Amino acid sequence: MNASTALLTDHYELTMVQAALRSGAAHRRSVFEVFARRLPDGRRYGVVAGTGRVLDAVEDFRFGPAELDFLADNRVVDEPTLQWLADYRFTGSITGYGEGETYFPGSPILTVEGTFAEAVVLETVLLSILNHDSAIAAAASRMTAAAGTRPLAEMGSRRTHEEAAVASARAAFIAGFSRTSNLAAGHRYAIPTMGTSAHSFTLVHDTEKDAFTVQVDALGRGTTLLVDTYDLTEAVRTAVEVAGPELGAVRIDSGDLLLLAHRVRRQLDELGAEKTRITVTSDLDEYAIAALAASPVDGYGVGTSLVTGSGHPTCSMVYKLVAREGRGAAPGDPLVPVAKRSKNKPSRGGRKWAARRLDAEGVAEAEVVGLGAEPPADFPGRRLTVPLVTDGEIVGREPLTAAQQRHAASRAELPMSATQLSSGEPVIPTETV
Amino acid sequence: MNASTALLTDHYELTMVQAALRSGAAHRRSVFEVFARRLPDGRRYGVVAGTGRVLDAVEDFRFGPAELDFLADNRVVDEPTLQWLADYRFTGSITGYGEGETYFPGSPILTVEGTFAEAVVLETVLLSILNHDSAIAAAASRMTAAAGTRPLAEMGSRRTHEEAAVASARAAFIAGFSRTSNLAAGHRYAIPTMGTSAHSFTLVHDTEKDAFTVQVDALGRGTTLLVDTYDLTEAVRTAVEVAGPELGAVRIDSGDLLLLAHRVRRQLDELGAEKTRITVTSDLDEYAIAALAASPVDGYGVGTSLVTGSGHPTCSMVYKLVAREGRGAAPGDPLVPVAKRSKNKPSRGGRKWAARRLDAEGVAEAEVVGLGAEPPADFPGRRLTVPLVTDGEIVGREPLTAAQQRHAASRAELPMSATQLSSGEPVIPTETV
Repeated sequence: MNASTALLTDHYELTMVQAALRSGAAHRRSVFEVFARRLPDGRRYGVVAGTGRVLDAVEDFRFGPAELDFLADNRVVDEPTLQWLADYRFTGSITGYGEGETYFPGSPILTVEGTFAEAVVLETVLLSILNHDSAIAAAASRMTAAAGTRPLAEMGSRRTHEEAAVASARAAFIAGFSRTSNLAAGHRYAIPTMGTSAHSFTLVHDTEKDAFTVQVDALGRGTTLLVDTYDLTEAVRTAVEVAGPELGAVRIDSGDLLLLAHRVRRQLDELGAEKTRITVTSDLDEYAIAALAASPVDGYGVGTSLVTGSGHPTCSMVYKLVAREGRGAAPGDPLVPVAKRSKNKPSRGGRKWAARRLDAEGVAEAEVVGLGAEPPADFPGRRLTVPLVTDGEIVGREPLTAAQQRHAASRAELPMSATQLSSGEPVIPTETV
Repeated sequence: MNASTALLTDHYELTMVQAALRSGAAHRRSVFEVFARRLPDGRRYGVVAGTGRVLDAVEDFRFGPAELDFLADNRVVDEPTLQWLADYRFTGSITGYGEGETYFPGSPILTVEGTFAEAVVLETVLLSILNHDSAIAAAASRMTAAAGTRPLAEMGSRRTHEEAAVASARAAFIAGFSRTSNLAAGHRYAIPTMGTSAHSFTLVHDTEKDAFTVQVDALGRGTTLLVDTYDLTEAVRTAVEVAGPELGAVRIDSGDLLLLAHRVRRQLDELGAEKTRITVTSDLDEYAIAALAASPVDGYGVGTSLVTGSGHPTCSMVYKLVAREGRGAAPGDPLVPVAKRSKNKPSRGGRKWAARRLDAEGVAEAEVVGLGAEPPADFPGRRLTVPLVTDGEIVGREPLTAAQQRHAASRAELPMSATQLSSGEPVIPTETV
């Protein structure tokens, strides 16, 4: 068992349990739904990411002695609630969009069914994971679309929280990044890691040539040499002199990348290093990547803009009670749909299904969201929800590559304008039926 | 010992160690500096946060069997490097700005001294922590300045990575927030936690009155009732009917807060609940808080905009080698200043000291940064750096309240325009001497 996730929770979840145990509502069968009322401004589609981490968090959501002592010492909840928490394990069911799936406003991204109390306490950690990871994946997806067939490496760890960095590497991989600089992401998720050297490595040596020589000696001729510490042209010359034409790659981390990539390509070719690749890594985002499409760049490394969601560091997913048992309900009675009545934050009660309607060419036409657990048997369209947890049993685990493939397929199914970088409306409408 | 932080590291840090062990540069005495070339656009000051977490991360930076096996199995580094990592513990020294201190472009926020190899491997995790936590603290500081004497509660956990949420609560506390919704932040850092109920709690009950009644029963009359699930006026009436005039507070989470706060205040007063407080929590940022200054609001809860740095989710702090031993240096020889020569990313070599020059009234006039370990003995101004780690020994631990007090004092010392919310230049210039 891993570290408990039980305290990654807002205080009010537990006080609600305390009060609901008192009223009996704690035991009412309930359905919570994760959805977003809107996409971030201008974005054409969202990307679900974090689902696999959600399953881990649900499994590790247990209150052990350390957690219970803290809650007791600080009088967060009363004794009956502590006893209930001590026995807590989620015994309900969760269905949701497969990880990597695209989503739209109103998509029922996750549906959590259980008693009110067992479901409500998961709100905070589920939203933390989904709102963060989906924001990173959405930015990453725009970048992989802009990069076309050129590989992208995630290297933003130094610009975000140290654990968010690991989750960002994971989300980027789902959206099509091929590698990460983050070793913990390699360790936990088997994502291929990469990296060779920073400017400090050149600076700690007496000369750039000393630095290049020992790097090639230590890491092989296939290594990537960083060539912009002093003079770029001189560095490229030294690099090929030291490593020969088998030099794997040079990395440019500053300056006018479009211009420099052309110049360095020409120089490398003149030096006989036609196969030496050029990677660029200077404050790239999806727009910069798109602008470099015509340049002789072989790969991109992306940092800050990726891990900050390229302007949208979070999604606005919420976790809302949409149905629950009514007063005096018998087992099997239908649940009562519920919704907040608020002018500026409308939501729609009831459990929902979702399917994507496709045209004759297999291109997505609409996100269709209906009431009930399943679409009608003859409903035309691709079903979007998969079982994740069934009666407390985790059934939705899958390799990360499955999520990567799902994302690629789901994005490819959208109208082509989905991957235009310009701002716009969601690329397909959400239809409620 | 806590979980190892050693893999919260970019791959290239370890390949640099491998190559530097080969050249011998690994053992060169070196000085790395954390600084930011600029503040986020329009911001008048930065806030250093994360220092206490940096000390924990340095202490836990150890390569155990799990970490070493991963590195070996994936051939990240060679056998001599694995042996060096197995014995790793930081034996150097770190000085830096006290946590909570304000900073400016070029402030030497952290100075790490040791061998090249032992210092370079800390780059990623140190920057992750400082860049994240300082971004959150800077946003939080603007909010506490805007709120004046009214208390602020941090409640953004659902909108950021689950561990970044805990760090955000900590950073917000340093910048003057009084409480957090995040239980793990209460557990780890003894930050007071708060919270009572969400809309789902009202919705799971058959009537709002049922929900209010059981909440007051379970949590006491001093509780905060959420009054905007259905009709606000009716809810306020029910709330006072149920709890009496001793009702602690009502919370409004949607709508035109300025208007609603006035209306609810009048209604509460008419109902005899003059002491019942009003807290508001709907998508607040520093501007919304400032706009509510004239409204009868007693406290604010801030979520999304806090944990996303209110438009600036990361700082641009970097970790640069600024000095190192020269070829054939004898012990005690001065280190050689080094710096990257790049047009658009200039930096200044050499170890630095920093002091804040104050005018006769004690108001800050300039951030003064000079070369060397210490300012001249007679230098007028407040010294900004404190010892954090000395010869591998952590000496800079302090209670979180010390950082909170330091921040309040440091901000109060700045010219008054520092806390204007409008965009501008750094409120004091950085002078290099």
